Amino acid sequence: MTTVETRAVVDLLGALAYAELTAFDRLAEDARLAPTLTGHAALARMAAAELAHHGQLTERLVELGADPVQAMAPFVVALDAFHTSTRPRTWLEGLVKAYVGDGLAADLYREIATFLPEPDRGLILDVMADTGHADFAVREVRAAIATNRTVAGRLALWGRRLVGEAISQSQAVIAERDELAQLIVEGTGDLSGLGRLVERITSAHTERMKALGLNP
Amino acid sequence: MTTVETRAVVDLLGALAYAELTAFDRLAEDARLAPTLTGHAALARMAAAELAHHGQLTERLVELGADPVQAMAPFVVALDAFHTSTRPRTWLEGLVKAYVGDGLAADLYREIATFLPEPDRGLILDVMADTGHADFAVREVRAAIATNRTVAGRLALWGRRLVGEAISQSQAVIAERDELAQLIVEGTGDLSGLGRLVERITSAHTERMKALGLNP
Repeated sequence: MTTVETRAVVDLLGALAYAELTAFDRLAEDARLAPTLTGHAALARMAAAELAHHGQLTERLVELGADPVQAMAPFVVALDAFHTSTRPRTWLEGLVKAYVGDGLAADLYREIATFLPEPDRGLILDVMADTGHADFAVREVRAAIATNRTVAGRLALWGRRLVGEAISQSQAVIAERDELAQLIVEGTGDLSGLGRLVERITSAHTERMKALGLNP
Repeated sequence: MTTVETRAVVDLLGALAYAELTAFDRLAEDARLAPTLTGHAALARMAAAELAHHGQLTERLVELGADPVQAMAPFVVALDAFHTSTRPRTWLEGLVKAYVGDGLAADLYREIATFLPEPDRGLILDVMADTGHADFAVREVRAAIATNRTVAGRLALWGRRLVGEAISQSQAVIAERDELAQLIVEGTGDLSGLGRLVERITSAHTERMKALGLNP
């Protein structure tokens, strides 16, 4: 890898490592909103899975000769801001955030990962693969909507707010990290390539909202 | 196993399963008090380890034909009360609680487990084995005391408060669960056997306080 490439990889791994650590925090916190011990444990398991990913990513950063704490540092403000501005007030909002928010983030990281050489491409795709806990969120949200239709409208708004905040924070981060921005621009080839990337992420988001029974 | 024995085993596994779930919650919450991302991740890893134990215990409850949620239910009030009355206000209080509090709980569960037949004895001993994260707490607390001696006095008081609350909640729980109380009374043999059990737990606690550099 060239120096520029290495910097972009370290940036991406650092962003993702901090994203996984904050995902752990937030899922662990939201688990306590669960109305049942079963739900509580289910969200806690999602949290633990994110932390395991965090560990894989920091190990790779160390292998690359990077200090994980320094690699995460540039992304702390934006990711903390995202979570502060999208703190769920209810158990269902927490589940929608876990499913829709994490799905969106996973898609973005996966798209960028395809521009990387191995083993980092494989590592990121592996870490971002569905951990199998998503079914739980879909089932719970659909059941709640079935018994109370007004919930669906509120959660649909919530889903749209999550996307808005995620996009604005992602843009802010990428704009500040030159090597990361360059990786994306070169990887997509041109503006229409970048447009198609955004289109793919948007339509996957739409599918996830539909899976929950919510208007995208 | 007789019905009485099975009830005692289900009680013990249920108490422990809920203890592990609340340990996860609390360690995950305290992780966010960490002054560094390294400390944050270290406590988060301790949390994830507790959740894995929770999973092993609920699996065994299901094998025994018990509903994990019902098995945990009798212990929710006491364990929640313990955590509410011992919520750390600082990162160091959180570390002392993680090391001293969890060590104390592990000793108590291990002592009771020796009265059980296999495979439950082995499962509990396995789950309660040191997860290897304790070194981290010891190192951090000792370093903090070395730079600021007044901290040691406050943390020593905190350690004593943890023991006091743990003992009072344990007694309340055991007094209410006949089969569990019977298991302990029969297992220890007589009052002097029970006295020796308490003595062993107390002296292990003293050793842990010393390891942290605190007056027991």
